[in-house]
Amino acid sequence: MSSPGNPPVRNNTQRVSDTGERALIERIRRRVPPAPPGLLVGIGDDAAVAAPDRGALQVLTTDALVEGIHFDRRFSTPADIGYKALAVNVSDVASMGGAPRFALLSLMLPIQTTLGEVDGLLDGLLDLAAETRVSLVGGNITRSPGPLVVDVTVVGSVKPRKVLTRGGAHAGDALYVTGQIGAAAAGLAWLRREAGEPDEAHRADTILPRPDEPGLAECVARYCRPQPRARIGALLGRTRTASACMDLSDGLADAVMQLSCASKTGAAIDPALLPLHPAARAWFTASGDDAIAASVAGGDDYELLFAVPPRAKGRLRGVLREARGVPITRIGELTDDRTIGLLSGSRLEPLPPGFVHF
Amino acid sequence: MSSPGNPPVRNNTQRVSDTGERALIERIRRRVPPAPPGLLVGIGDDAAVAAPDRGALQVLTTDALVEGIHFDRRFSTPADIGYKALAVNVSDVASMGGAPRFALLSLMLPIQTTLGEVDGLLDGLLDLAAETRVSLVGGNITRSPGPLVVDVTVVGSVKPRKVLTRGGAHAGDALYVTGQIGAAAAGLAWLRREAGEPDEAHRADTILPRPDEPGLAECVARYCRPQPRARIGALLGRTRTASACMDLSDGLADAVMQLSCASKTGAAIDPALLPLHPAARAWFTASGDDAIAASVAGGDDYELLFAVPPRAKGRLRGVLREARGVPITRIGELTDDRTIGLLSGSRLEPLPPGFVHF
Repeated sequence: MSSPGNPPVRNNTQRVSDTGERALIERIRRRVPPAPPGLLVGIGDDAAVAAPDRGALQVLTTDALVEGIHFDRRFSTPADIGYKALAVNVSDVASMGGAPRFALLSLMLPIQTTLGEVDGLLDGLLDLAAETRVSLVGGNITRSPGPLVVDVTVVGSVKPRKVLTRGGAHAGDALYVTGQIGAAAAGLAWLRREAGEPDEAHRADTILPRPDEPGLAECVARYCRPQPRARIGALLGRTRTASACMDLSDGLADAVMQLSCASKTGAAIDPALLPLHPAARAWFTASGDDAIAASVAGGDDYELLFAVPPRAKGRLRGVLREARGVPITRIGELTDDRTIGLLSGSRLEPLPPGFVHF
Repeated sequence: MSSPGNPPVRNNTQRVSDTGERALIERIRRRVPPAPPGLLVGIGDDAAVAAPDRGALQVLTTDALVEGIHFDRRFSTPADIGYKALAVNVSDVASMGGAPRFALLSLMLPIQTTLGEVDGLLDGLLDLAAETRVSLVGGNITRSPGPLVVDVTVVGSVKPRKVLTRGGAHAGDALYVTGQIGAAAAGLAWLRREAGEPDEAHRADTILPRPDEPGLAECVARYCRPQPRARIGALLGRTRTASACMDLSDGLADAVMQLSCASKTGAAIDPALLPLHPAARAWFTASGDDAIAASVAGGDDYELLFAVPPRAKGRLRGVLREARGVPITRIGELTDDRTIGLLSGSRLEPLPPGFVHF
């Protein structure tokens, strides 16, 4: 653990309802590392106050994880949930070409939540915060009469003229994706099969054991703790390699559609080029599913999809050299004719739909 | 209504579950006024991007309203809820001496939520946004398996050396409060009595009628739509009149305790000086309650408590002149001896506790 302060007791079964909001805030404040330069007021006042990054623009994003919608307590530990709640926001900042700086944590806690669970949430969140140099500077805690909700806001910075939007690409730009796809979807499918109750989220004291097979175990880990591509996003922005970028929070198919739509182009994806996670491919195939369809439709990958104009190919080689082992794969290109699909011979087949929130 | 775009149909009973997240985001985007200078990327991308206020620090705050905890659908219309969700955050920025600039809206919607209700939430939020010059720049929408949750983040700005914390005051500083206290608590008490089920929040298609008595109607309005003291907070910061400041979100008693504790002082409040709302005083007295105790314990006033050092009395007169009819009342002073209470002859009586979130 990266956090200083008194070590919290993870198996503390005292309920938050017997603790009080102030004591909880103080418990969190004690665990947060010393304030970075530029942070004038952190946790404990009405709001946080920080100096903006010199010469940079602010990047602002918020994303909530809701129990029963985005996570299942049988699948994810409190630390997984805290980690992922920050990860999804860091991913959004990365997809704009920015660097994350500050986080606000808004917690809605069911009355039976224990201090050990809150400590666990913080473990995960502060682990990723340390990895990505994010400071937790404030937030809010309240009771929830329903699900556990972890809503995180991240404020980042990006230099002017280095911002990556979804809409900056043109026909003829090549499409690339970081990492591998389908792993999170396969991990979730495995967890749901093991749990035996596909759509019913319920609270449980025990967490499902992980798969023995290392590839599938990695898929489950990708689902529970996605690795946001913070370094690569910032690199793509700083070097002006990408003309457009977004993350795969709702799956590759959705991202291709959103980016193409915002850039007013079509897109042709070559299924033979898609970097499917090998264990995901094996899992979907063994389950009788179309591995490509399942992988491009599956959400939660938190990889980056980006477009590279022909003139930026040299810069892309520079990014590849600095990617530190993260694969970056060309999967197709943006086209003139506004149709979007998977190449099948000379035809385009429609993309499967992405994750639906309602 | 201040918003351009197509007028939404408030009685639209189509469910959000039949609409989809993208269409909902687009529906909201269409209603948001044109981007202010400095906003480069607004609603619809992975994150918003904005230029920071030149020479200023960032103020960051988040606060959630949860159905069944912070509001009851029988008492508050969707527009009231949207208004208040922004108001509580604007109040936090004001209490730091800052000016609000941007808002992110994180909505968690039960599946039976209608488009008319979402339009109503936006009505209220955008009304206050226009009043306080706040731009809605992004957010998140997801389904909730439990309560309606409206979680807002506000980013504001404050000049260096004009920041008002809770901890900057000293013994001998006078304590002041804006507006009147107890109104929101009386309004809520009236609503609960009318509803007949004090602690049970349930969804209802009809909203309780407002009281006939104008004073009580004002109390209910203060509860449903608190007026954050945005102008006065910014003025107190800019003129360096206050040595410490916080808002009364959890009541005056709580605020006095928090400000004194952070400033390492005691506090003596003169109950004869407290600016109780006349209708609140009458309501509590008629209900057999101690009006002062009920008013200082009651949350939701969203007035500002601030300390003024003796040397800043001249500056305070300047603030009073610019307060545009909002009363500012001296209620006591900060003391050396770390005890906090209400003056009763020469003794101090303990303050009643404030709003408890758990």
